[in-house]
Amino acid sequence: MPVEIPEHSVGLVTPRSVAFNAPLLLECGRTLPAYTLVYECYGALNAARSNAILLCHALSGDHHAAGYHHPEERKPGWWEHLVGPGKPIDTSRFFVVCANLIGSCKGSTGPASINPETGTPWGLDFPMVTVRDWVQTQAQLADHLGIDCWAAVVGGSLGGMQVMQWAMDLPDRLRHAVVIAAAPRLTAQNIAFNEVARQAIMTDPDFHGGRYYAQNTKPRRGLALARMIGHITYLSDDAMRKKFGRDTRGGKAFSFGFDVDFEVESYLRHQGSSFVERFDANSYLYITKALDYFDPAAAHEGNLAAAFAPATAQFLVISFTSDWRFSPARSREIVQALYTRNLQVTYAEIASHQGHDSFLLPIPQYVEVLGAYLARVADEVGA
Amino acid sequence: MPVEIPEHSVGLVTPRSVAFNAPLLLECGRTLPAYTLVYECYGALNAARSNAILLCHALSGDHHAAGYHHPEERKPGWWEHLVGPGKPIDTSRFFVVCANLIGSCKGSTGPASINPETGTPWGLDFPMVTVRDWVQTQAQLADHLGIDCWAAVVGGSLGGMQVMQWAMDLPDRLRHAVVIAAAPRLTAQNIAFNEVARQAIMTDPDFHGGRYYAQNTKPRRGLALARMIGHITYLSDDAMRKKFGRDTRGGKAFSFGFDVDFEVESYLRHQGSSFVERFDANSYLYITKALDYFDPAAAHEGNLAAAFAPATAQFLVISFTSDWRFSPARSREIVQALYTRNLQVTYAEIASHQGHDSFLLPIPQYVEVLGAYLARVADEVGA
Repeated sequence: MPVEIPEHSVGLVTPRSVAFNAPLLLECGRTLPAYTLVYECYGALNAARSNAILLCHALSGDHHAAGYHHPEERKPGWWEHLVGPGKPIDTSRFFVVCANLIGSCKGSTGPASINPETGTPWGLDFPMVTVRDWVQTQAQLADHLGIDCWAAVVGGSLGGMQVMQWAMDLPDRLRHAVVIAAAPRLTAQNIAFNEVARQAIMTDPDFHGGRYYAQNTKPRRGLALARMIGHITYLSDDAMRKKFGRDTRGGKAFSFGFDVDFEVESYLRHQGSSFVERFDANSYLYITKALDYFDPAAAHEGNLAAAFAPATAQFLVISFTSDWRFSPARSREIVQALYTRNLQVTYAEIASHQGHDSFLLPIPQYVEVLGAYLARVADEVGA
Repeated sequence: MPVEIPEHSVGLVTPRSVAFNAPLLLECGRTLPAYTLVYECYGALNAARSNAILLCHALSGDHHAAGYHHPEERKPGWWEHLVGPGKPIDTSRFFVVCANLIGSCKGSTGPASINPETGTPWGLDFPMVTVRDWVQTQAQLADHLGIDCWAAVVGGSLGGMQVMQWAMDLPDRLRHAVVIAAAPRLTAQNIAFNEVARQAIMTDPDFHGGRYYAQNTKPRRGLALARMIGHITYLSDDAMRKKFGRDTRGGKAFSFGFDVDFEVESYLRHQGSSFVERFDANSYLYITKALDYFDPAAAHEGNLAAAFAPATAQFLVISFTSDWRFSPARSREIVQALYTRNLQVTYAEIASHQGHDSFLLPIPQYVEVLGAYLARVADEVGA
């Protein structure tokens, strides 16, 4: 059944791909011999090449931030309500780029890709990639696209970490940094949740040490559990109460057994099993580990302001009141460090009951703040 | 290496056991043909039989609340610092009883016990047991011990739920109800964590539909994951930060691999694997389900005060500020319902950074509040 493309969508989009054949030295010390980035672009680059925005995706995201791949696609890109003509990330003014991270599984090189040395999938032989490495690959993509300086680099959650790393590593190549629902480093609790997710995957007998591709199987149970755990941390207690409460499935009486009783159980099981169809377990391992490792202040004895010393960008930092994964307090740490550096910072703490997931949702105040900020950026860069 | 029994311990204790051979009709509608309770007693019952306290244990607890089973035992009972001569639950004044829950795995009848009809372990054929059923069995134990009325029924977490159920179901059989770190019902988020834990167990290939006893194996991976998930919810974010921060194991550099990097990972893996040695996976399923089902207000259109209508006990309710599993707000719901019923309530919100686990820890203000309250109870009952 063909879907009518909504009016304010970027419409049909086609992913592009670029192969970089020079070896890429990674933070872990290893070298990736070559790699491919899959990415999407929306809007048009202006003559001055000054109106480009880079979007950085989160753990389970990809390059498909907006629009539809074909008329029958049921779901548009993951930031559809923020990216498009007339939307906060306004494709009638900006040229918007979003690339799939290396280590992920949506087309860019990752553990499911073929290791040229062996002719078989990398699996856990794929080198560890970090936020710093991702920024490096995104800079190579910018070179490829002829973009010397982004009008803004924008990202939520893990995407926000990439934005901070951009501001630290390549300060001349972005004017504005938009850091949404992020944190300067994971807490022990954040790492703990990631570790349980990884253990779920790695202890699944179908994991085969990460070489499950060759076994024509995958660690379905483990990856589903990992996603279920993640999902609990994306939603607030309050959001879960509003969404499910203690409702039983179909309003039925208790089963007094181990089938689904509560709606929330049914929801989680569905989230788990559907994720298995669209995400690679090894990629989940790599990206959660990159999250754990991210800690730019560590090289400065924990002083985040010192880590931001090279930064020159202007910042918009956004947090959400009910986000307990990366709480507003974590965003305030970022803001404090930026203030210490005398950088221009706008900080918005958005009232929301939807938890960490808020950064993906069309919350009016959020849409408004982001839109107003980027409209000013558009004016500034002559977009 | 023999341990010297500390002075204020109840010392060496021997579990007792009682078999009830009359069929027990359960809330689920099924009947347990017979059952055994394993329990411990500390202190002496006075002539008036008025000085008995019942302790109700939590999810992974058991009847061994205090003392040592043998001189070489490394760890005393789980409430050693609260139960003993001169301690808040003072065994020089009170006769203290703690029984292992049916459905559990420490000696009372549960899914690992033999189903008399088949001659093999019950597994998932064991009937579902609920908080109400546990109270019923504890009342049968009280009859067996000749205790008409407990001076107090005391419990934390799931134990606190049993205390509330006692006050509702058998109001004439307790004078005081001490409800610690509990909630009147689980939230959707609480249920979600339990469900992920259950899924971890039930999707483990070694689970064999709960009949793993016959396979000479057990769902080690699943149960370890379940425990890891639980453990994260027992600790506060703050407690984890204080305990582990982002410390790497042995202060080493990042491995850039999937072995343990952070201390918190090492700790969780240890918690998971050691739990497997001492707890039965089927019991974990049954007891988490009983937690999910507990909701005495449900039969009263969500009105908790109405559920407390039969209650006559005096209450002490205790919560801990950093407990995000059963937060102080949940205890305040209980207190509010008790006020509505004009019951005598003492409420203490204890400052603690140790999360839900606080109810098991020797936090001075907590020890003091509980001790002062129970000293008054002892005076009242002539203990």
